[in-house]
This record gives sequence, C-alpha cells and structure tokens, in this order.
Amino acid sequence: MKELEIINQIKSKKSFLCIGLDVDQEKIPKFLLNESDPIFSFNKSVIDNTHMYCIAYKLNIAFYEAYGIKGWKSLEKTINYINTNYPNIFTIADAKRGDIGNTSRMYAKSFFEELNFDSITINPYMGRDSVEPFLEYNDKNTIILGLTSNQGSKDLQLLKTNEDYVFMELIKSSKTWTNSKNLMYVIGATKTEYIEEVRKIIPNNFLLIPGVGAQGGDLNEVCKKSMNSNIGIIINSSRGIIYSSNDVDFAEAAKKQAISIQKQMEQILIDSKLI
Amino acid sequence: MKELEIINQIKSKKSFLCIGLDVDQEKIPKFLLNESDPIFSFNKSVIDNTHMYCIAYKLNIAFYEAYGIKGWKSLEKTINYINTNYPNIFTIADAKRGDIGNTSRMYAKSFFEELNFDSITINPYMGRDSVEPFLEYNDKNTIILGLTSNQGSKDLQLLKTNEDYVFMELIKSSKTWTNSKNLMYVIGATKTEYIEEVRKIIPNNFLLIPGVGAQGGDLNEVCKKSMNSNIGIIINSSRGIIYSSNDVDFAEAAKKQAISIQKQMEQILIDSKLI
Repeated sequence: MKELEIINQIKSKKSFLCIGLDVDQEKIPKFLLNESDPIFSFNKSVIDNTHMYCIAYKLNIAFYEAYGIKGWKSLEKTINYINTNYPNIFTIADAKRGDIGNTSRMYAKSFFEELNFDSITINPYMGRDSVEPFLEYNDKNTIILGLTSNQGSKDLQLLKTNEDYVFMELIKSSKTWTNSKNLMYVIGATKTEYIEEVRKIIPNNFLLIPGVGAQGGDLNEVCKKSMNSNIGIIINSSRGIIYSSNDVDFAEAAKKQAISIQKQMEQILIDSKLI
Repeated sequence: MKELEIINQIKSKKSFLCIGLDVDQEKIPKFLLNESDPIFSFNKSVIDNTHMYCIAYKLNIAFYEAYGIKGWKSLEKTINYINTNYPNIFTIADAKRGDIGNTSRMYAKSFFEELNFDSITINPYMGRDSVEPFLEYNDKNTIILGLTSNQGSKDLQLLKTNEDYVFMELIKSSKTWTNSKNLMYVIGATKTEYIEEVRKIIPNNFLLIPGVGAQGGDLNEVCKKSMNSNIGIIINSSRGIIYSSNDVDFAEAAKKQAISIQKQMEQILIDSKLI
C-alpha cells in the first residue's frame, strides 16, 4: 500500500496527474525510429521532462505486447528506469488481467514480482477468486475496472439488477473480498453522473480516472464529484500529453501540456482546501 | 474463420479435445530444467505426443508472461512450432484481454498478427467496442467469456437483471455486434445447468468449455447439453493432461491421458450420431 506516499506526493507536487505511456511506434516522432529502442527512448524523454508534474505513470501493456519480445524489452526498460530514477512515482501496469485463481497468481507474479509495478488494473468479470491473488500483495494496489469511459460500458456495466447497476453491485461486493483495503477503482471521467453514488459506497478508496482529454471528460466537474478529504483520485491522461508534438520538441511539448494540467489541478486543490 | 476446418478435424480425429498448455516451471519434471528453454522443451514433447488426439492447443498467456522476456520467447517458439509442424491444429491464445478500441486493436495485432494465433479469449466487461477490433479479423475467431467455471462467476456473471442473468444478456447483445459470426463463447463445464439456455440463444456458435478434469466438470453431461449438429464444442483440459506424470515419462503419460479422453469423445460422437 503506497496510498500515504501517493497523498504526500500529490501535496508536494500539487498534482494528481497520471501520465499514460500508451506508446504506439507509428505515432512517435519519426527521427526516433533510428534509435535502437525507439519506444524506450521516447518514454525516457517524456519521463525526464514530466516527472515533476505528475505522481504516476501508467503503462498500457497492450502497446508493448504488440511488438512481441522487443516490446517486452521496452516495457522492462521503462519500468526499471522509473523505479531506479524516480522511486516515489506510483507505477500502474494497465493490463486489465483477471483469470481463475492459479492463473491470476501467475499474472500477479509477472507484474508485481518480475516487473515490480506498484499496481495493476484488473478486469473483475470473473469475480472474487480472480482478484484475490492480486490483493494478497499488501504493498501493492489492485485497481479493478468499475465503470469504464467507453461506449460499451452500457453493454454490461450499466445493466440494472433489482438493486442497482451491475458495476455498482460489483463494487459493493468487492468490499467483502479479503484485503479489499488494497483496492482502487477505475471510473471513467465521461461518467460523472455516477461518481457521487460510487463515492457513497467507497468513500475512502482511491479512484483512477481515465477519459479526461482525448475521450472528452471535464476535469473540474470530475474533481468536484470524486474528491475526498485525502484527495482520493488520480486522473490519467495519455494521448493528450504524450502526443502533444510529433517533432523533435515532443518531450518539451509533453512537459508544457503536463504543466498546464498540473496548474489546473493545483487550483482545484487550493479551491478545495486540500493543500 | 476456421470452423469448417475445426469440424473436419473433429470428424477425422474423433476428438474435440483442446489441450491447455498452462505450463508452470515449478510443476514440470525437474530434469527439464537443464534445457536451455525448459518450458518450450516440455511443450514440444507434449505436442509431439498428443497432436493426433486433440484438435486444439490453448496457450494460457499468464504462464508465459510470468517469466518476462524468457517466457515470451517460450510462447513464440511454441506457437511457431505448432503452426509450422501441425498447421491444421486450432490455436487459442488464452489471454482474456479487452480494453478501449485503440488498445484492443494493439492486442489484436499482438496475438493475431505478431504471434499468428487462430483465436483469442476476450473478457467482455467493457462491451461491444472493446471486442469489435478483434472481430474485424475474419479469418480468426474471438472467444468471449460467457459463464466461467470458477466460484467468482456468481459475483457478476450470475447477477440477474429483470430479463435474465447478466452473462446471458451479454451473449444476447453480442449477437448484434459487427462480425458476430466470428464469435465463440467460453462456458464452464461446471455450469451445465445453464448450457441448454445458452444453446437456445446461440445455437450455431462454437463453445469453448474448460473445467472438465481438475475443476470437476462431467464430460458426458456437458456434451449432452451443449453439442449441436456440427458438434459445436471444444472441451479443454490442461492440468489433467500435461501434469499426468512428473518424471521422464511425462509426455508418454500426457499421451495416455489424451488418448483416454479421445476414446470417451469418440464414443460420445458415435452415440450422438455425429460421426
């Protein structure tokens, strides 16, 4: 559990920004393709230029897996680079894994032990016993999908039982799981109409909120509805930051964009009397 | 779509067995640890000894990812070995992926293009737009989780809406997705009480059925309730076959176990007048 460290970081950096390193080789500046590991070179520059303005990096595993072994090397180098150079930064393996117990245990080993991420995103479709192997790691956080930011969230998450929405039922039952204190929840920024209800059920857990930026969520409204007295939220932006420029100034442009969001977050923290 | 090929294979081999290569380095015979790639050596022997009695291999990606780059190498070597030597065999990447559209597209690229699997298992929690990028591949199958064999299936899949169980609602809506003809569905062998209802909704799609063996499902009952006139099912067994012996005779023992299941399947196919 690194929650206290996360809160301390937020207060000192005046930011609750997570930068998503969803790095597509076809979208990075062309001159980087001459490097031996273009994706790692891209990440290193972005990280070196933004780590003062964000408190977390989220590595979307799909974007690394897509390049096979080469991609896994870029992934390993990136997480090692962050852990070595910026050890306070909270790292998220955006993997959306989840399987029967013995398989989830292997995924936990992979992301928590081999790669040493601080947290992982988990798809909870298979329920309690698919998530608990991750929750056994008390020094790590397990971030389950609650309500996602995409259109398709209505196909399952927003179905209604007699009691509530399916995703709400899931959040409620997750509170009974062993070591549920290690849980965080993904709630999409495009779904502000549901966030206040979520907060009633889980007042204290951190929320990881994607969907500000490219996907259209509004930062101020999201914060108003989701923050708690410990801040309690991490807002992710990926494409909106890392692809700010497609030229030699890409890292500088990402930095500017990160600063711009950090400034907005600082104002929100001040207005909410949280710093 | 390899369905016709699958059916032809089933009829010629008199088997609808899928062998799950969920290979844990701690469970394979100790003498293999002297090999340069113990997991690949294990897989190669199992495959060479069982390919006549099964029609598919399912590679559980977690078990490879757990060993990082080394694991990805074993994974690549295994899928290439099958594709080169036994090209008719249906291959399943048991990955349980699924994410927003642009991310799912990267996963599809990874498993369908880079690794050249015939199919992938997908977790449908995020709905239509998280699955459709996989369905775009018309020569591949996308196998979504319906009702899984584990305890935790009750936490979400078996919640009830006004209409039906959540997993049934999902199966119903999946029929409206673009290229839904490329869908197959995972239905756990421990859930026979629901299979007949599933068949009414999707009479023609193939079902991938895990949970016979180590997890306790009964082969005869499962088949009775799930087969259609094109057979329509693939039954997976992993631990029950590959860990039949922990000694130098491991591949021979896996073969014996595969033959034993194939014989039962042959009898079921004869009794059902399908061959």
